[in-house]
Amino acid sequence: MTKMMTKEDVTEMILSAKRTAGLTWEGIAEQIGMSPVWTHSAAMGMNAMPKDKADALASAMGLPQEASLVLQESPTKIWEQSVPTDPCIYRLYEIVGVYGPTIKALIHEKFGDGIMSAIDFDMQITRVENPKGDRVKIEMSGKYLGYNSW
Amino acid sequence: MTKMMTKEDVTEMILSAKRTAGLTWEGIAEQIGMSPVWTHSAAMGMNAMPKDKADALASAMGLPQEASLVLQESPTKIWEQSVPTDPCIYRLYEIVGVYGPTIKALIHEKFGDGIMSAIDFDMQITRVENPKGDRVKIEMSGKYLGYNSW
Amino acid sequence: MTKMMTKEDVTEMILSAKRTAGLTWEGIAEQIGMSPVWTHSAAMGMNAMPKDKADALASAMGLPQEASLVLQESPTKIWEQSVPTDPCIYRLYEIVGVYGPTIKALIHEKFGDGIMSAIDFDMQITRVENPKGDRVKIEMSGKYLGYNSW
Amino acid sequence: MTKMMTKEDVTEMILSAKRTAGLTWEGIAEQIGMSPVWTHSAAMGMNAMPKDKADALASAMGLPQEASLVLQESPTKIWEQSVPTDPCIYRLYEIVGVYGPTIKALIHEKFGDGIMSAIDFDMQITRVENPKGDRVKIEMSGKYLGYNSW
Amino acid sequence: MTKMMTKEDVTEMILSAKRTAGLTWEGIAEQIGMSPVWTHSAAMGMNAMPKDKADALASAMGLPQEASLVLQESPTKIWEQSVPTDPCIYRLYEIVGVYGPTIKALIHEKFGDGIMSAIDFDMQITRVENPKGDRVKIEMSGKYLGYNSW
Amino acid sequence: MTKMMTKEDVTEMILSAKRTAGLTWEGIAEQIGMSPVWTHSAAMGMNAMPKDKADALASAMGLPQEASLVLQESPTKIWEQSVPTDPCIYRLYEIVGVYGPTIKALIHEKFGDGIMSAIDFDMQITRVENPKGDRVKIEMSGKYLGYNSW
Amino acid sequence: MTKMMTKEDVTEMILSAKRTAGLTWEGIAEQIGMSPVWTHSAAMGMNAMPKDKADALASAMGLPQEASLVLQESPTKIWEQSVPTDPCIYRLYEIVGVYGPTIKALIHEKFGDGIMSAIDFDMQITRVENPKGDRVKIEMSGKYLGYNSW
Amino acid sequence: MTKMMTKEDVTEMILSAKRTAGLTWEGIAEQIGMSPVWTHSAAMGMNAMPKDKADALASAMGLPQEASLVLQESPTKIWEQSVPTDPCIYRLYEIVGVYGPTIKALIHEKFGDGIMSAIDFDMQITRVENPKGDRVKIEMSGKYLGYNSW
Amino acid sequence: MTKMMTKEDVTEMILSAKRTAGLTWEGIAEQIGMSPVWTHSAAMGMNAMPKDKADALASAMGLPQEASLVLQESPTKIWEQSVPTDPCIYRLYEIVGVYGPTIKALIHEKFGDGIMSAIDFDMQITRVENPKGDRVKIEMSGKYLGYNSW
Amino acid sequence: MTKMMTKEDVTEMILSAKRTAGLTWEGIAEQIGMSPVWTHSAAMGMNAMPKDKADALASAMGLPQEASLVLQESPTKIWEQSVPTDPCIYRLYEIVGVYGPTIKALIHEKFGDGIMSAIDFDMQITRVENPKGDRVKIEMSGKYLGYNSW
Repeated sequence: MTKMMTKEDVTEMILSAKRTAGLTWEGIAEQIGMSPVWTHSAAMGMNAMPKDKADALASAMGLPQEASLVLQESPTKIWEQSVPTDPCIYRLYEIVGVYGPTIKALIHEKFGDGIMSAIDFDMQITRVENPKGDRVKIEMSGKYLGYNSW
Repeated sequence: MTKMMTKEDVTEMILSAKRTAGLTWEGIAEQIGMSPVWTHSAAMGMNAMPKDKADALASAMGLPQEASLVLQESPTKIWEQSVPTDPCIYRLYEIVGVYGPTIKALIHEKFGDGIMSAIDFDMQITRVENPKGDRVKIEMSGKYLGYNSW
Repeated sequence: MTKMMTKEDVTEMILSAKRTAGLTWEGIAEQIGMSPVWTHSAAMGMNAMPKDKADALASAMGLPQEASLVLQESPTKIWEQSVPTDPCIYRLYEIVGVYGPTIKALIHEKFGDGIMSAIDFDMQITRVENPKGDRVKIEMSGKYLGYNSW
Repeated sequence: MTKMMTKEDVTEMILSAKRTAGLTWEGIAEQIGMSPVWTHSAAMGMNAMPKDKADALASAMGLPQEASLVLQESPTKIWEQSVPTDPCIYRLYEIVGVYGPTIKALIHEKFGDGIMSAIDFDMQITRVENPKGDRVKIEMSGKYLGYNSW
Repeated sequence: MTKMMTKEDVTEMILSAKRTAGLTWEGIAEQIGMSPVWTHSAAMGMNAMPKDKADALASAMGLPQEASLVLQESPTKIWEQSVPTDPCIYRLYEIVGVYGPTIKALIHEKFGDGIMSAIDFDMQITRVENPKGDRVKIEMSGKYLGYNSW
Repeated sequence: MTKMMTKEDVTEMILSAKRTAGLTWEGIAEQIGMSPVWTHSAAMGMNAMPKDKADALASAMGLPQEASLVLQESPTKIWEQSVPTDPCIYRLYEIVGVYGPTIKALIHEKFGDGIMSAIDFDMQITRVENPKGDRVKIEMSGKYLGYNSW
Repeated sequence: MTKMMTKEDVTEMILSAKRTAGLTWEGIAEQIGMSPVWTHSAAMGMNAMPKDKADALASAMGLPQEASLVLQESPTKIWEQSVPTDPCIYRLYEIVGVYGPTIKALIHEKFGDGIMSAIDFDMQITRVENPKGDRVKIEMSGKYLGYNSW
Repeated sequence: MTKMMTKEDVTEMILSAKRTAGLTWEGIAEQIGMSPVWTHSAAMGMNAMPKDKADALASAMGLPQEASLVLQESPTKIWEQSVPTDPCIYRLYEIVGVYGPTIKALIHEKFGDGIMSAIDFDMQITRVENPKGDRVKIEMSGKYLGYNSW
Repeated sequence: MTKMMTKEDVTEMILSAKRTAGLTWEGIAEQIGMSPVWTHSAAMGMNAMPKDKADALASAMGLPQEASLVLQESPTKIWEQSVPTDPCIYRLYEIVGVYGPTIKALIHEKFGDGIMSAIDFDMQITRVENPKGDRVKIEMSGKYLGYNSW
Repeated sequence: MTKMMTKEDVTEMILSAKRTAGLTWEGIAEQIGMSPVWTHSAAMGMNAMPKDKADALASAMGLPQEASLVLQESPTKIWEQSVPTDPCIYRLYEIVGVYGPTIKALIHEKFGDGIMSAIDFDMQITRVENPKGDRVKIEMSGKYLGYNSW
């Protein structure tokens, strides 16, 4: 019984091709006409690709044809660590712990009782020059969803 | 033995005064000349206030004098739930789970091996009008810190 | 320092009035013109009430005026047990464990890559007569939200 | 020592045949005369199949004969994550957290002290068109079971 | 605001009356015409009592009238420790860990794919004399519930 | 380096031979003159077998000679899930949660301060016919062990 | 409603009397003619006392009469931390982690398949002089219990 | 790339040789002139061996030369289960839970504020004959370490 | 029944006196002739004080006489969060996660198989000026303890 | 599909070469002109190496060329055990538990509201001779980072 090609297999193929060819995520994203955040996320198996983008990525990275099918499938999004240990990711978790109630209070003040969607959502990451040390800027945008009464 | 006034006591005094007077966080923040995010966070006991801001807040909200001292003390930042259950806060946690490795990869690509500081950090929250439904915009900015070798 | 009235206080007042007056949730819901599910949920402090409904509930149950303000505030939704122990609630948790991947697969098949909203959401519970033993029917309806690419 | 064929093996065979043949769960379910929810669940190894349905599925998907035996065995239902991370499944978990006590209260009000069975249970998932955005409808039906006194 | 009488309050009243009067659970159970297992469980707030039994218990133990109402309410069954530490209770947990898969296999062999109900359920505990040391006998009986296909 | 034969290997051999030969646990138990509960448990690697029973099982199932040695070794009893997810096993866990304190109270009342042994222990499972639906009967018997003072 | 006297109340009374009178556990144990280990454990509410010892302790420490009844009741043994943080107790936990499998292997080698009872159990703690630094000696003795086959 | 020989590999070699040759831990320990507790522990990879003992064990069990090097390396002591499930090991864990605070109190009373070392530590296990049933005796000895002030 | 004075009570008295008098830990430590690290730790109830230091602290802070007795008692060291959330403390936890195996490897290389004691231990914290930003220096010193063989 | 070379692969190559050649971490560190702490940490995959150091290490240890690339990649820092079990590492964890709040209090006293960075960080480990037993000295130095207000 041959094993089915999985999202993990495709991620490894992409990382391997990227290392060999010395590519960047910015460069790969440009090749398929999408943002670097979304492109990386889909390459990691955390987002599904529309057919044209999956074909473009497969062709740009020299992946076998089945890989495009796999990239189009809806992923099951799993993270193993409920509290992430990597310092770079932990700092984001810490921000949620420290500022989560504040974000919630201000969303309620500005919009009413509801949330920011994590589905109808996008994000940009940029480098901002600063004489005291450059800064990472993260911009998130999500649709406001209000609770309904019935 | 009388109980010391704690950060929790001061938070409750602020919330009570806010409810009675029908204030908003935007309004309170304006009165002390700071951003709403930072003001709410300090009022919740998640950030320490410089003396002038603590005095201003105490006076604006009609708090007893000891409250200003309490607001100036360095808080011990504690959150009880390692995975938050409130839907509005959980969505932020989910974003860290889904996009954490992506943010990490792009920081490494743009800056090198390091992290975005959660200490030398600020944040804004705004409402962005949109015909398909208004959107919540969260902007985070943190100093890049590179690992050193020795 | 007097304690602020909390969501928990209001919940206890409602339960106490309900026990004393021998009311049902169906009856209470009818008095404020809303569904029993939503009414109970808001009374438990798991949903915020619009002003008119909060006033109606406060008046119907003989609650003090501040209680209406409290019912209108956005709750922080907290549940203590990540795996519920009460058998009636556990069975629902078990259904999510057993059928969660199935619901996911069929949503993807019928709609594409996305989810059923738990915010723009409503639910009904009915008793269905059946000669082999009456059945509980739970109907959930939530807006489909598709992931976007950017 | 050759390895026994397991439920996981059969699930992978079904998924592989489905990808190759471009089938849908609705289509597979129709071929064996069962509902899509139950068919998917059994294919995932979360329900046992009666012999005729197992034979029908094995024949429809071109599985080896032993696969039908495996499909008929009682599964040990295991889920690894006590709190699911996949957003589509998490929303269902969140509904149990937020509305679990409400469902419990209304079952008690309509039936008495008891639960909805998760064993003598069935479920349908449908797409409901809606001008503000189509909705996912989930209907669950489980036999009411009352606690007995002795 | 006076506090509502809770299940915990009633349990404490019963335990206090039992200690003062030097009663046994066997004796209390006999007074209300029920089994000791069920009587203790309901007194601990883990089962709801029918009106006549609640009245009988309240009268036998000299409880205030509201206590009978409380005994009739459906309890929310909560246990704090997912792994119990008390040695007497832990041994039962251990039996489930060691023999759970065996009980499951034999239920499947004798009945088909299904479970023993923990709702339509009863239990007896008896002391069995034995020259090598007396033995505890626990007899559980629960209705078989088969999974259905649909 | 060849791998040692483990308890898991022997369990798989037994299950494989059982499936191929269409045997039942009752039948296997009868062949070695032991109860089905104990036989299944030892076959799963949760109990050690005396030499004569291990030889009898190995010969009845056509296992290699080393398998008998393995069946005689004291197992390390491990279960992965502190809260079991399989519904059939979970119901047993739930019974311990709900009735554990009751069983404890009645053991103390009938015997004194002590426990029911889970080591000097046996169990039977039987099917009891019942017009309202057949019932599973589980009988456990364990030696009473009293705490000593010193 | 007056609160019942609990095990915690009695423990606090004993500790308070001990501090005031400047007693030692050795001294208290001697007064009631029992070992220091068992005496401390019962005083902490982790063991039940026979009537004569409970009366002796109550009288020696000047406790109210109800305290003797409480000392005689079977405790529910609860520890909050599954991994203890106190360094003195943690070291014992570490010994179980490091040497647990070794103790198990040697019990099996010396006795057969079984365990050392933690119920029919006693323990002594002594100080052993040693020129390189005095040593703590802990001696545990528990009845061997063999698994039975049936 | 060939895999390095690990502690786990050496443990398996020892267990395999022991099963084949029908040895006991007492016998193996005698061959290398050490106690059975320490010998088993080192063979399991939970203690490092001095060179002469590692060579002696390797030669006695017929292990390859690299095995002696591996036996001499400092192990990283890992146990997977924070609460052990095996009944024989769990009883030890239970003893720490029940008697931990007692051991702590008596160490403080006999020595002062400090602990029993789990590093400068040894242990013996013996079988003690007893007409009511033989007993397991465990003797632990660890150096007392006092906290220092500075 | 009056409550005994606890370590928590004494900690609160010290913090309250410190806030009122505007003291620093450096100043308090100097008054009793000990280091700031040890003084703070003992004031928090994480170390026991010798009689003379406890008397000195009680007198310096104006505490009641019983407080000195409490400061001398051996504390039970408890921390609630196995992973600390406060950012300042979390960074230390992170250092243990990232560099723990490295510290272990270098201790083994420099000393042999053993550990650094956390009991016979001391620590200093100093501020080191640096043109790129001042640095926190933490110096820990603990006795090396070697594992023994027996 | 060939597997990509991972950080784990490179770590194993380094450990294997070190064992074969009988090297020490001090020696390896000297060869590449870095400290032993940092060198070990990078070899374990917990820090990224600059190109020249990675090349130097690869050449010194005889690693294939791709290994240098792998050593330069930013690692995802993962530790599996939130509470480490190895005694040498646990003692460090314990120090954080016992002295974490003290370190925090003194940083706040000496610097203001902020933390010691674990990123702009270095560490030395030395052996300090002492007639009462040699001591391990750990020196950590991290940049102070102050919270900002905005």
